[in-house]
Amino acid sequence: MIIIGVDPGTVRCGYGLIRKSGSTVQYIDSGVINLSSADSVPFRLGIIYTRITEKIREYKPEFFALETAFFGKNVQSALKIGYARGAAMLAAVHHDLIVAEYSPREVKKAVTGNGGATKEQVSYMVRTILSDKEAEFRLDESDALAIAICHSFRAKSDEPNVRNWKDFIKNNPHLVKE
Amino acid sequence: MIIIGVDPGTVRCGYGLIRKSGSTVQYIDSGVINLSSADSVPFRLGIIYTRITEKIREYKPEFFALETAFFGKNVQSALKIGYARGAAMLAAVHHDLIVAEYSPREVKKAVTGNGGATKEQVSYMVRTILSDKEAEFRLDESDALAIAICHSFRAKSDEPNVRNWKDFIKNNPHLVKE
Repeated sequence: MIIIGVDPGTVRCGYGLIRKSGSTVQYIDSGVINLSSADSVPFRLGIIYTRITEKIREYKPEFFALETAFFGKNVQSALKIGYARGAAMLAAVHHDLIVAEYSPREVKKAVTGNGGATKEQVSYMVRTILSDKEAEFRLDESDALAIAICHSFRAKSDEPNVRNWKDFIKNNPHLVKE
Repeated sequence: MIIIGVDPGTVRCGYGLIRKSGSTVQYIDSGVINLSSADSVPFRLGIIYTRITEKIREYKPEFFALETAFFGKNVQSALKIGYARGAAMLAAVHHDLIVAEYSPREVKKAVTGNGGATKEQVSYMVRTILSDKEAEFRLDESDALAIAICHSFRAKSDEPNVRNWKDFIKNNPHLVKE
């Protein structure tokens, strides 16, 4: 299965694509969409949507993963993250991709084992998992790859319509009951 | 000139279209897009985008006006308004419309003469300006019409002379292609 992870912002928007086959996770593509504050917000959203759409059309991922926003108490930051995430979500929806969301803590924990890891630790583990320790990823790029990796660890099956826990226990009663 | 005003939210999204000819302002269409909190945010953004796009294709407005968000200190509200406004802005950008933004105070002042007017006062003045005192607008609808009316009063000329998305990507091909 192919997964696209996106780390959206109105200044920089990271994306990363990986392929999971069995227990192996391979690197496909990644990058950072740099946005200029000289351009209006609607144009920046147009750029995010177009660039993410290009990557979806190029690699046809079955899964789309986003990090849930972290913005502390700043309403202006929250609004801007809302814009960027909205544009990324629409690109997903328009290509029939279900959006999975993970908190920054879940992503860090999935990749490094530590929910409080630094961006540098995340980047190091992303390179290790993708078997390319020499890779030079920008931080927004390794964050996006980490989101995709987190999803690859979480998704129980290669099938895009991952069932929820309720369905899982209904279909596998022997795993939770003697 | 035809103006579409949008008052976006992830629960209700109002829209209103008016025509300005000389100093007259005529009603064209308005409504409220009701969204269910049972649907995921990406799906709700898909609905906002599609419905606004339908109205743009039907009436071909030259101008798109939005109210700048007001959300006090609540970061969760700010994030959600960001989502909805992002979806509405993308619909505008994808139809080569420039997004004009007005603060709630500017809109109220333009329509009623008082920046602190209530929604009911705004609704009353919208009906008066559109010469239909009997019209029954829901509040999200009269708010959206008020935003369009505000733009009709502010716009200096009937010509949409500002750069649109088509021109923007023609002049900046590197921003949307690697």
